[in-house]
Amino acid sequence: MRTIDLINKKKSGKPLSADEISFIIDGFTNGIIPDYQMSALLMAICFKGMNPRETAELTLKIAHSGELVRLPSIGGIKVDKHSTGGVGDKTTLIISPIVAACGVSVAKMSGRGLGHTGGTIDKLGAIPGFKTALNREEFGEIVKGVGVCITSASENIAPADKKLYALRDVTGTVDSMPLIAASIMSKKIASPSDAVLLDVKTGKGAFMTSLGEAVELAKIMVDIGEFAGKKTNALITNMDIPLGESIGNTLEIIESVEVLKGRGDADLASVCKLLAAHMLLLADKGSLEECVKLVEEALKSGRALAKFMEMVEAQGGKLDFNNFDNLPKASIIHKIKSPRTGYICEMDALSAGIASSVLGAGREREDSEIDYGAGIWLHKKYGDYVEEGELLATFYTSDNSKIEAAAEKFMEAIKFDSTKPPQIKLIYAFVSKAGVEYL
Amino acid sequence: MRTIDLINKKKSGKPLSADEISFIIDGFTNGIIPDYQMSALLMAICFKGMNPRETAELTLKIAHSGELVRLPSIGGIKVDKHSTGGVGDKTTLIISPIVAACGVSVAKMSGRGLGHTGGTIDKLGAIPGFKTALNREEFGEIVKGVGVCITSASENIAPADKKLYALRDVTGTVDSMPLIAASIMSKKIASPSDAVLLDVKTGKGAFMTSLGEAVELAKIMVDIGEFAGKKTNALITNMDIPLGESIGNTLEIIESVEVLKGRGDADLASVCKLLAAHMLLLADKGSLEECVKLVEEALKSGRALAKFMEMVEAQGGKLDFNNFDNLPKASIIHKIKSPRTGYICEMDALSAGIASSVLGAGREREDSEIDYGAGIWLHKKYGDYVEEGELLATFYTSDNSKIEAAAEKFMEAIKFDSTKPPQIKLIYAFVSKAGVEYL
Repeated sequence: MRTIDLINKKKSGKPLSADEISFIIDGFTNGIIPDYQMSALLMAICFKGMNPRETAELTLKIAHSGELVRLPSIGGIKVDKHSTGGVGDKTTLIISPIVAACGVSVAKMSGRGLGHTGGTIDKLGAIPGFKTALNREEFGEIVKGVGVCITSASENIAPADKKLYALRDVTGTVDSMPLIAASIMSKKIASPSDAVLLDVKTGKGAFMTSLGEAVELAKIMVDIGEFAGKKTNALITNMDIPLGESIGNTLEIIESVEVLKGRGDADLASVCKLLAAHMLLLADKGSLEECVKLVEEALKSGRALAKFMEMVEAQGGKLDFNNFDNLPKASIIHKIKSPRTGYICEMDALSAGIASSVLGAGREREDSEIDYGAGIWLHKKYGDYVEEGELLATFYTSDNSKIEAAAEKFMEAIKFDSTKPPQIKLIYAFVSKAGVEYL
Repeated sequence: MRTIDLINKKKSGKPLSADEISFIIDGFTNGIIPDYQMSALLMAICFKGMNPRETAELTLKIAHSGELVRLPSIGGIKVDKHSTGGVGDKTTLIISPIVAACGVSVAKMSGRGLGHTGGTIDKLGAIPGFKTALNREEFGEIVKGVGVCITSASENIAPADKKLYALRDVTGTVDSMPLIAASIMSKKIASPSDAVLLDVKTGKGAFMTSLGEAVELAKIMVDIGEFAGKKTNALITNMDIPLGESIGNTLEIIESVEVLKGRGDADLASVCKLLAAHMLLLADKGSLEECVKLVEEALKSGRALAKFMEMVEAQGGKLDFNNFDNLPKASIIHKIKSPRTGYICEMDALSAGIASSVLGAGREREDSEIDYGAGIWLHKKYGDYVEEGELLATFYTSDNSKIEAAAEKFMEAIKFDSTKPPQIKLIYAFVSKAGVEYL
């Protein structure tokens, strides 16, 4: 088999066989296929795509490039959730303990932030002492003992994906549906869960800016999951505006605890309840209605919050759910006042996410340090009425020089109108192997 | 400027500016832009193309990556000819001395064979003592003294093209019209001629298999040449069947001398006369009819043959035009008989070219040695009637083990029919800045 022939085959739009895909991933991982041939092939894939069979075989091959974490000693259906990335998206922190409190194990391997979006591992890193890099034994023990554990994916999870992503990132070959789907799902296949709920974000702050793209990606990923023998559903959710009131790591821990207490932003709580209920649905805990009830009971009874605290403790974290004084704090607090009176009719999640990142909540480069205390608290959101001079948001940062650029970016996110804008749709669609159901 | 942004720009179909093209070619030549980014960009160019302005600017930039050979001391219009590559295509050897004999200087820098097609430098290499690697002074002196000189292009002619071609060759990015045109024309721009006649081959043995592709490539190249200030015309000629009766280096030298003597294959002679006349036309030697007359007089008078011998001598070659005994010879002569009776209705130039290459006339690898004596003499050609058992062709080789494979390939080239096939069209079209004229 010659790499050049496979490049030409894909370039002419023909599907690659399972053997050919194996040859490529093995060769690339072992360094036998040079980067310059791989990047040409990736660009051809961007233009010509991959059919469902090719995409699924690529994904499995990438997953099998490393370790497949399995926890056979843990009974029942283990359920995972994956978000394609959003701004203020702290749902994993909230729904994982809810689901565990309902008796379904959550053994989650999460990632760091990417671009303007936050990552669960970064958020948990704000809790002093919280250990996110667990070995396989620690991970298994906590899942078994607590019912929920969130660890970072080890270097040996889908190493071919890491090498591929690094090359895609510098060769303009990131935005290909089959490549995005294979990258995400290879890590889900390597993870120990039996079922996967995908939260595919769409809107201004998502990687999939249109609903059509989000549905397409969800369908591809559901197909891959089912092909790999994992029950897989997806919800398409709104990422036009930030999710909840906080953006930034310490702030999002605080807001997550608020929601677990049954308080907090109504939209965020609503999305979390539906996601958690869908995870229970995947674990055969009843109808969706019954699952929603289980979720509400877990929250109301305080069992979900208790499960969160149990997980934090098991992973070495020091947290008091009534007092957040020990969390990393920003030294500078800057208030953003409204420049005019009116209804907020737009609050672009992308600009808001970048503004928070500029304040220090995100990474400028792969190896940059995060300022855990940095971020933005939104006092007013989409649809709210605001008077000129009223408090819009609070900025948290440790670097005074970043405030001006962040404020400029943040104000780009916001538009005002004299009439109240229509209510935002939080959930667009449900995708399963049965098809797409628009909600 | 960032390479990744330029890859994404081209990927989305937008044209690159002159500055962006400069940045890319400079960066790639200097090794600042890595191969893996360049190959992704080249693949994007394969899919999205380049507009005429981009293609011309790319070509000029590649030409300027090395030396521009200029011969200001030689008066008059110097005319060059370039063939896109064929099987049995020895026209350069024949028409260069014809044109010089008509008083127009030919300062030609030629290449080696590529794939199944032969190269002028390889053919001249069959003449004992013939020096093809001349320095600039030697080149200029022979052009001045004799009126015609054919040298190989030095390492410093369009070095960016060499580096680009090596990458395209292994990344499936060869077959892009703007890239092919830029590669050819960059070397024409670096050469000292004032005008260029392009012989764009089309058919089974050509790189452009369809007439449409050939015309498209010719138009792009004519545009580039005119943009660079060189008067440029193109003829689209037939390469369905081999040109003339010989394929292979020594054999083609012998056949070229035959044509210069006014004998040899009628089709080959006819194509050569037209090409030579078109070169004279570019040098303002009169109307096409008048130029054809000049060519015929140069051949009839023996001046063209004398000019060829003068050039061979000036370049150190030892050749007797009445006795070819000193040319490299194959040790094995193998006769191919016709397996059936009928008219030859097909003689695929690609298969015939490969068969000759298998016998030793071409290179298996970039660094392989050529067997100058190897090749095929065609006793029967397209349209000829042949009896079963009659001599079809003679194989020349130094390696007995190659005959079977070569014979099998050669017989793939030939099809028989009971009725005489229609006459083949030798010249399809003339392309100039005024447009395309189908002949």
